Amino acid sequence: MSLHSEILEQPTCLERLLVSQRKTVEQIVQAIQMDDIQFAFLAARGTSDNAGRYANYLWGAMNSLPMALATPSLFTYYHQPPRLKQALVIGISQSGQSPDIISVLTEGKRQGNPTLAITNTPCSPLAEVADFVLNIQAGPELAVAATKTYTAELMAIAMLSAAMSGKADRWKELAQVAGWVNAVLELDETISQAAQRYRYMQQCVVLGRGYNYATAFEWALKLKELTYVAAEPYSSADFQHGPVAMVAKGFPVLAIAPRGYVLDSMLKILAYLKDELLAELVIIADNPEALDMAQVPLSIPTHIPEWLTPLVSIVPAQLFSYHLTLAKGYDPDKPRSISKVTETR
Amino acid sequence: MSLHSEILEQPTCLERLLVSQRKTVEQIVQAIQMDDIQFAFLAARGTSDNAGRYANYLWGAMNSLPMALATPSLFTYYHQPPRLKQALVIGISQSGQSPDIISVLTEGKRQGNPTLAITNTPCSPLAEVADFVLNIQAGPELAVAATKTYTAELMAIAMLSAAMSGKADRWKELAQVAGWVNAVLELDETISQAAQRYRYMQQCVVLGRGYNYATAFEWALKLKELTYVAAEPYSSADFQHGPVAMVAKGFPVLAIAPRGYVLDSMLKILAYLKDELLAELVIIADNPEALDMAQVPLSIPTHIPEWLTPLVSIVPAQLFSYHLTLAKGYDPDKPRSISKVTETR
Repeated sequence: MSLHSEILEQPTCLERLLVSQRKTVEQIVQAIQMDDIQFAFLAARGTSDNAGRYANYLWGAMNSLPMALATPSLFTYYHQPPRLKQALVIGISQSGQSPDIISVLTEGKRQGNPTLAITNTPCSPLAEVADFVLNIQAGPELAVAATKTYTAELMAIAMLSAAMSGKADRWKELAQVAGWVNAVLELDETISQAAQRYRYMQQCVVLGRGYNYATAFEWALKLKELTYVAAEPYSSADFQHGPVAMVAKGFPVLAIAPRGYVLDSMLKILAYLKDELLAELVIIADNPEALDMAQVPLSIPTHIPEWLTPLVSIVPAQLFSYHLTLAKGYDPDKPRSISKVTETR
Repeated sequence: MSLHSEILEQPTCLERLLVSQRKTVEQIVQAIQMDDIQFAFLAARGTSDNAGRYANYLWGAMNSLPMALATPSLFTYYHQPPRLKQALVIGISQSGQSPDIISVLTEGKRQGNPTLAITNTPCSPLAEVADFVLNIQAGPELAVAATKTYTAELMAIAMLSAAMSGKADRWKELAQVAGWVNAVLELDETISQAAQRYRYMQQCVVLGRGYNYATAFEWALKLKELTYVAAEPYSSADFQHGPVAMVAKGFPVLAIAPRGYVLDSMLKILAYLKDELLAELVIIADNPEALDMAQVPLSIPTHIPEWLTPLVSIVPAQLFSYHLTLAKGYDPDKPRSISKVTETR
């Protein structure tokens, strides 16, 4: 069962990446000369795009670096790419194969910008075109639904942030991530039982905010890929600007609500969903305020620094998605209609 | 019935905005000194955020201006906003009330950037904080679900693009938009009948690409707000990176596929959805290739320049959403749980 074993492999992958690539990351950051960069311009699809959402928040908050998410069709179909003056152009792709992501880096290079590939395939076309390559070293990922390459991409992004900040403390915090993930993996059996309740769920929303906006998107994507549930992700703020109208009594809302700057805002919307709209809540959190509100609470270790919670909080979401797939009678290693490498233009 | 009458009002609103604000738009663009700007930094929520998606593609393709979509929580909760050097900071909001959008402009101003508010409420807090205000002049919008302010925001964005380009042809094309929208409104009765078929639809996806990526998001939002259908929007490329797994026989896929650079890519995915996955298709288009594939084709006038198709193609989507709301027995003027002005931080 490759999906399940790849989920379990994550602590090993994260530790390996941190130890073996720290020097490379620091060299890349030094070589890029960040003082000349006004913004990051990032291209990615699917799971890697969700990793990009983490970079958007993390680099914005920790490194003051604004980010523009690329619109690949302007490069591939319209042939009218924007000017990228003073941009750091980044592509994230497990396979390094998708022509649209490659075309963004090719254009970035043509315009004279520094280009960086974050990939699990350092001999790929994407890596070949980039000035700098960060190999996430997750090892072959056989399952169609990405898990260990997602957390490895997050780790790569967090390492780049630590290197840009120049703060030694950040690296010490990063060294604890593998242990926290290990602790979450012990919930495997508990989550397997909890997932049974959603055997007949057909749709849901997934809420996260700030750093865990990315987690909401990735949890929703795993559910769509594996369980075929129409799971739509939102920031808790965007959700209130219209989509909350969907929620009737019993409507399932999945949420990620660890301690941190945005917890108060998450607690407020969760309380409204529970008390006023009578929604069903599945909540990943490290604090009793959020966990006590859930029909199904999924707890992660306490005292994780907020910026690293996405690397840990996605793991119970992966296990939940995996076990729900089995509960629904689908094959987690053979999702219908999709394949490991998707080449889009 | 205010929602329906506001949909019908759109040609008048668009014409008024174009005629009365052209000079203001040209003055704003001149005053901003675009040569000093490396990227646009845009904050918006809900319907206005979808208008922002149009700006992302249009200004990128037509005006070479890259865009970063703001992450408001970095401003409101984290208090760690990114540096915005050489950015044009823009807020789009019908009401001009939402504190998160205001805080992005306040910070942009603090950092010394030019700031622009696009709003229907020129006496709002958002307008007060901005250096430049573009009043979309749509008149009071009473329905909770935004329609005429959406197309007016698109028009404002298109006018800014025309002014930045300095090309007279663009203004001539803009002058035809109201007429095209008028032509689509004649389909009101046809669309009312077509919507009956989806009385029991509970979930769907909405596909668009390039300029009409925004249309897919806005159609999905109207469906969620009014009909409570779990409607998830995608670019056709993102959709293939995982979510397509949801599609089983009869799964409803709504799509916008007018002529233009991305039509071939849309036709390819639509043919796959129809022939291989046996999906149900509702398609808004101006060409027989796309329309012939649909169980329910919704046609818009031919020969609309691609960059202006979003201003026209959303109109049948609005009518579809409105009539489906009635078919499902809901009140289009009183969607549950949401109100006209949503104030989030």
